[in-house]
Amino acid sequence: MLKPKEQLRFAVLATDVVLFAIQDKALKVLLMDVHVPPWFRHTQGIPGGLVLPDETTDDSVRRHMRMKVGIQSKDVYAEQLYTFSAIKRDPRGRVVSVGYLGLVPPPIASNIFLRNVHWQDVTELSPLAYDHDDIIKTAIRRLRDKITYTTLVRYLLTTEFTLFDLQQAYEIILRCTLDKRNFRKKMLGLGIVKELHRQKRGGAHRPPSLYRFVSKDARVFRLI
Amino acid sequence: MLKPKEQLRFAVLATDVVLFAIQDKALKVLLMDVHVPPWFRHTQGIPGGLVLPDETTDDSVRRHMRMKVGIQSKDVYAEQLYTFSAIKRDPRGRVVSVGYLGLVPPPIASNIFLRNVHWQDVTELSPLAYDHDDIIKTAIRRLRDKITYTTLVRYLLTTEFTLFDLQQAYEIILRCTLDKRNFRKKMLGLGIVKELHRQKRGGAHRPPSLYRFVSKDARVFRLI
Repeated sequence: MLKPKEQLRFAVLATDVVLFAIQDKALKVLLMDVHVPPWFRHTQGIPGGLVLPDETTDDSVRRHMRMKVGIQSKDVYAEQLYTFSAIKRDPRGRVVSVGYLGLVPPPIASNIFLRNVHWQDVTELSPLAYDHDDIIKTAIRRLRDKITYTTLVRYLLTTEFTLFDLQQAYEIILRCTLDKRNFRKKMLGLGIVKELHRQKRGGAHRPPSLYRFVSKDARVFRLI
Repeated sequence: MLKPKEQLRFAVLATDVVLFAIQDKALKVLLMDVHVPPWFRHTQGIPGGLVLPDETTDDSVRRHMRMKVGIQSKDVYAEQLYTFSAIKRDPRGRVVSVGYLGLVPPPIASNIFLRNVHWQDVTELSPLAYDHDDIIKTAIRRLRDKITYTTLVRYLLTTEFTLFDLQQAYEIILRCTLDKRNFRKKMLGLGIVKELHRQKRGGAHRPPSLYRFVSKDARVFRLI
């Protein structure tokens, strides 16, 4: 085994995960209470924690999601976001954090009932612990970019949805209004959703058709 | 300062960078000699090395590119690729590596003349040291995906190019043949390149027009 100089073994490794969900027509992020006096008192942050010596960062994220938020990794889409290594990001010492982006589908998101955890509208965030504001900003940027060239938005929707639901999800995340006709033409033209030939139940005069995504994974739209 | 248990300070942090360039109509990756007996003898790997206690990972990549490859960060496009944390990726102990993707423009790429460094065709790689095969595979996947929804390919081209040069760059990276008419229509339709109203010099009967990218940065094509 390598015997590195002690100063090379300086780092504590952590993972932090930005979990997003759409609720009440808003993009929300999962926050937890943080209370680590004297540095942070009664503030909030995203879930995460240390990486153990026998864990990969993926293992660590799965463990923290299960133990701190009570969600199983199979129920969430997660990908590595960015590794945050600013020297003073943690006032307690050098902690390098591998950030993850997680997308939580509506039924799972509304089933989280822990006392110290809640979904917060991303447009209404107070300053958070550590560099969690930066991590969330990076995650929002990634999400907004990535839904425009992949089918990633699927993980923020129910399996079956109307084209209106899909448009609304894009509008909430991109914070804009999209032209209905153009949007439908693009979505159907890309061949990524298929009509189920069933209607959404409800009292509508002319009930809208249900759709689902064609492929199981988050496909990249290839323009070239 | 935090006094973590010694086993939490287990990790040595490193950065590794996959540098790509197009040379002789092939996608190439920069390899260095690796000789770390008894684990690796006369093999090769990508450039990289340890992160120092007072460095971010970006700083570390800049330092290793400068000191080991002799290139300045201003001459290269670089972005974080992925953090590799498999427990046994380094036989000497637990080393977590933050991988980077770097794109080297032709004039810089052909100006690297170090004895222990060379450009290797990505289709002709022998097994490499550590998990560098994995890191390169991840980087190729990222590059191939990302050039289809951004203008990232610009960093593998000279500033001024013909539409044929551009198509050839895409064909080399994607390993496919593209339809010339469709390709030109798409590229001009996206509005990302502009014609310079000058011709490429050379002996061609009808010299082709030169183009350049409209924006300075690697733009994302927004489909939605």
